[in-house]
Amino acid sequence: MKVVVDAFGGDNAPLEIVEGAVLALKKHKDLEVILCGKEDKIKEILNGREERIEIINADDVITNDDVPTEAIRHKKNSSLVVAYDTLKTRDDVIGLVTAGSTGAVLAGAIMKIGRIKGISRPALAPILPTKKDSDVIIIDSGANIDCKPVNLLHFALMGSAYYSIIYNVESPRVALLNNGAEEEKGNELAKETFPLLKNAPINFIGNKEGSDFMSGDVDVMVTDGFAGNALLKGTEGAVSAVVSILKKSIKSHFLSMIGAIFMKKTFKDIKNRVDIQKKHAGSPLLGCKKLVVKNHGSCARANILASIEQTMKLYENKLNQKIEEAILKLEETEN
Amino acid sequence: MKVVVDAFGGDNAPLEIVEGAVLALKKHKDLEVILCGKEDKIKEILNGREERIEIINADDVITNDDVPTEAIRHKKNSSLVVAYDTLKTRDDVIGLVTAGSTGAVLAGAIMKIGRIKGISRPALAPILPTKKDSDVIIIDSGANIDCKPVNLLHFALMGSAYYSIIYNVESPRVALLNNGAEEEKGNELAKETFPLLKNAPINFIGNKEGSDFMSGDVDVMVTDGFAGNALLKGTEGAVSAVVSILKKSIKSHFLSMIGAIFMKKTFKDIKNRVDIQKKHAGSPLLGCKKLVVKNHGSCARANILASIEQTMKLYENKLNQKIEEAILKLEETEN
Repeated sequence: MKVVVDAFGGDNAPLEIVEGAVLALKKHKDLEVILCGKEDKIKEILNGREERIEIINADDVITNDDVPTEAIRHKKNSSLVVAYDTLKTRDDVIGLVTAGSTGAVLAGAIMKIGRIKGISRPALAPILPTKKDSDVIIIDSGANIDCKPVNLLHFALMGSAYYSIIYNVESPRVALLNNGAEEEKGNELAKETFPLLKNAPINFIGNKEGSDFMSGDVDVMVTDGFAGNALLKGTEGAVSAVVSILKKSIKSHFLSMIGAIFMKKTFKDIKNRVDIQKKHAGSPLLGCKKLVVKNHGSCARANILASIEQTMKLYENKLNQKIEEAILKLEETEN
Repeated sequence: MKVVVDAFGGDNAPLEIVEGAVLALKKHKDLEVILCGKEDKIKEILNGREERIEIINADDVITNDDVPTEAIRHKKNSSLVVAYDTLKTRDDVIGLVTAGSTGAVLAGAIMKIGRIKGISRPALAPILPTKKDSDVIIIDSGANIDCKPVNLLHFALMGSAYYSIIYNVESPRVALLNNGAEEEKGNELAKETFPLLKNAPINFIGNKEGSDFMSGDVDVMVTDGFAGNALLKGTEGAVSAVVSILKKSIKSHFLSMIGAIFMKKTFKDIKNRVDIQKKHAGSPLLGCKKLVVKNHGSCARANILASIEQTMKLYENKLNQKIEEAILKLEETEN
């Protein structure tokens, strides 16, 4: 399996990206990687470890300051555009991994690769922990800011297919984010989306509130990118606030400082469970004709390893075929 | 000062509500309270402590299962409707305190009391802690699900006036909840709201994301009730999830259990800081012609005390006059 990697996307590029690819190659003997970016820099990092690696030179870089669509159109020699062109034109490449600017990754996916037939909009679906043992995904988390009911319906189908593969669950519990549990609750978008989800070929468990997001009672939380971004970022901010209040308090009580020494394992547990993004693969851009996995800008080599592994897993488990099948099933229900 | 209290609204009514009123009367010698609800039950609880208390009998109760507008219209002898009628008709009553159904409280406020001239929609603005020493309010938090830019403009004015009184801050930092900091970010509503807030007579600090909500860098977070509810409830859910993960982990490591004993003070600190709702007054229904303070359904006597004290403080500090002045100032800027 061959994966193309944007070696110059993200805050820690190229070092962490290249090292992540090397980790993946060590672990997976059936993997080959194409690295896009400044060849001399990449070679310097590889320092001879070039087995199963192909380098495609790209001298330019897209930054967060670039206007996404313009950057994709005009920065033809940027690492991301060269990676997209490689994904598009080469049949042996199964997917693309990048930690580049979200806007540019989205724009590139739509302009270079295109959507799966029947999918109105691709979406991002990051993973969060819950208070139980299961994780939860939120779709869309910010790729699509103004949405229509049909977009949310497609998010639900894609999110369900994705969750079912990554957690090996037959029928993930799909909920609609709302301001109350009752069927008649919601803004116009939620009210119009409810009946669509009710009739869709998914395990729809109804409306859920933000407070249910990390409860462990929901697997796939469906919403528009604006509310989704508010919920996702609010959750991250709240976790960070609690940790910060905890730290400040420990420092101000002598006994607590002693207690904290005994609690090392617990703090590690929390870190592992809560800092889920740290070990995670980021999110695929669900609904693209070919696999695109986007990690966050500040990610490290372990994330890039995870992103490459996720690309392989989603390919092996035929994510896109499953999304296509769900769309067909939906069309059958509608007719 | 005379405050009318809905003695039969909320899960812990009438006991906690009546005891809360008694606490307030003990603390504030210039306070008088009117309790609305079943007279015999109230008298049983008071057991002689009737000084500065007037009881108005109301045999019926509005529940969460009632349709709000219908309940206000038809349950004329419910404790909430009787309390609203008292607030409306008696000039000596400065405000109303209730822990009843949010929908009914909102419907009653609009149908019985009415809006301040120029305010398009009343809104709820609960308080949350931040990782610094300041608190933050979110407006609207769920009273207004589908909003227009002018509604958010009014939320900003009212939130700023309210925050400025309760925290004695001259110019609270008002932010617009958005999916990015840049001016051009947002859904249609946010994009259209941005210039209105920029030109409003408030200290507008621009767009902020959900992750900034508890950062301590924002005092008043402005948004529609749908996104606001998602952010508020998501925050509560995240805090609860972290605490739950912490507890589970402590139980599973022997050393952590020992550590936890030393950390008693820290856990108390966190509880005090995070469970802010526990000691708080709930939220006034900002924009009503007379003061209405709504506490959460499961609140206890300490909250009712806080709600009554908040009503007194907002009255003394002329909240409604300040909102009226802000609206006038806004109209001057617009002309």
